[in-house]
Amino acid sequence: MLRLKSNSSQRWLSQVESNLDEILIDHAHCERKAASTAMGLMNSYAERRELCDEMASIVIEELEHYRMVLDVLDSRGIRFRQLRPSSYGSQLNALIIRTEPQRAVDKLLVASLIEARSCERFDLLRKHAPDKVLADFYDSLFESEARHHATYVRLAEEFAPRAEVQRRLNELSEAEAKIIEVGSELARMHS
Amino acid sequence: MLRLKSNSSQRWLSQVESNLDEILIDHAHCERKAASTAMGLMNSYAERRELCDEMASIVIEELEHYRMVLDVLDSRGIRFRQLRPSSYGSQLNALIIRTEPQRAVDKLLVASLIEARSCERFDLLRKHAPDKVLADFYDSLFESEARHHATYVRLAEEFAPRAEVQRRLNELSEAEAKIIEVGSELARMHS
Ligand SMILES: [Fe+2]
Ligand SMILES: [Fe+2]
Ligand SMILES: [Fe+2]
Ligand SMILES: [Fe+2]
Repeated sequence: MLRLKSNSSQRWLSQVESNLDEILIDHAHCERKAASTAMGLMNSYAERRELCDEMASIVIEELEHYRMVLDVLDSRGIRFRQLRPSSYGSQLNALIIRTEPQRAVDKLLVASLIEARSCERFDLLRKHAPDKVLADFYDSLFESEARHHATYVRLAEEFAPRAEVQRRLNELSEAEAKIIEVGSELARMHS
Repeated sequence: MLRLKSNSSQRWLSQVESNLDEILIDHAHCERKAASTAMGLMNSYAERRELCDEMASIVIEELEHYRMVLDVLDSRGIRFRQLRPSSYGSQLNALIIRTEPQRAVDKLLVASLIEARSCERFDLLRKHAPDKVLADFYDSLFESEARHHATYVRLAEEFAPRAEVQRRLNELSEAEAKIIEVGSELARMHS
């Protein structure tokens, strides 16, 4: 359902176990960036009513997630701070073709894959969380990121025929799996 | 309280009377841009907890305003579309000094002035609206834009001493009044 070409590795789960505070801080930044991506799509396609309606909802939801993560940080006494991001997002963004309408399709599909990967990892995190509070927290995020994934794919089909969207999603998803397989020495949501 | 150096002219009210549909469409775009400005500030100062908390609230509120304006468009049978913006925003943004911490102060103060001008104009619109539905709509927006204005000024004081913020606000407010006095031949929220 998530159109991912790989599952997260034990390597990543080990990074999480040893660096939970950093993963949580990065997670807050990821929710902010997810809101910002949706906001940027609204700005780029400001006359597309359906896209803008959906993006407005996603921005609001991601900012609610952002607040939830900050509450988790507070409750665990973790100081929020800037973090060097993993290169996952920039590597995916580099794959976006810059001419329309392909740009719209690619931006939406890259967003859909980031949502899918987050979703896949929230599923792992809810199973491996060190306590029930954290497990419930990840569980509460799982459903909305799966929904965001589907929304982004559906919106891409407003810009290109379904078969073409599926072909490109397949291609980008292969690339995503390679990026995630290499990973990062930084402990991040998408390392 | 709004730190504006001028009141909107009869010229603008005449533009509104003759082009209400266009003013409403532009208004929807303005609410989107207000959300985007707050989102951009969150991205630029992502480790500033207080600023990010406030910006998250403002993004959500502006997107709620955006939805409200779209509902008004729908109920009046006005088709939402892209519009060439007035040069008000770009003229104000050109005044922003690009080196920190002045950039933060200027960005926040420019945002505060746009909120103030919107607020001043919602006050006029609620008094001159052609029907009670529209008057109530503008009335409902008045208070939050006044609050946003004050929030932006207060946040600027996190980046520079209060006296310096007041001096710069005075300067930018003089410039804003000149820009609004010249106006635009386009009928816009900020023409
Ligand atoms: Fe999220
Ligand atoms: Fe999401
Ligand atoms: Fe607003
Ligand atoms: Fe506002």
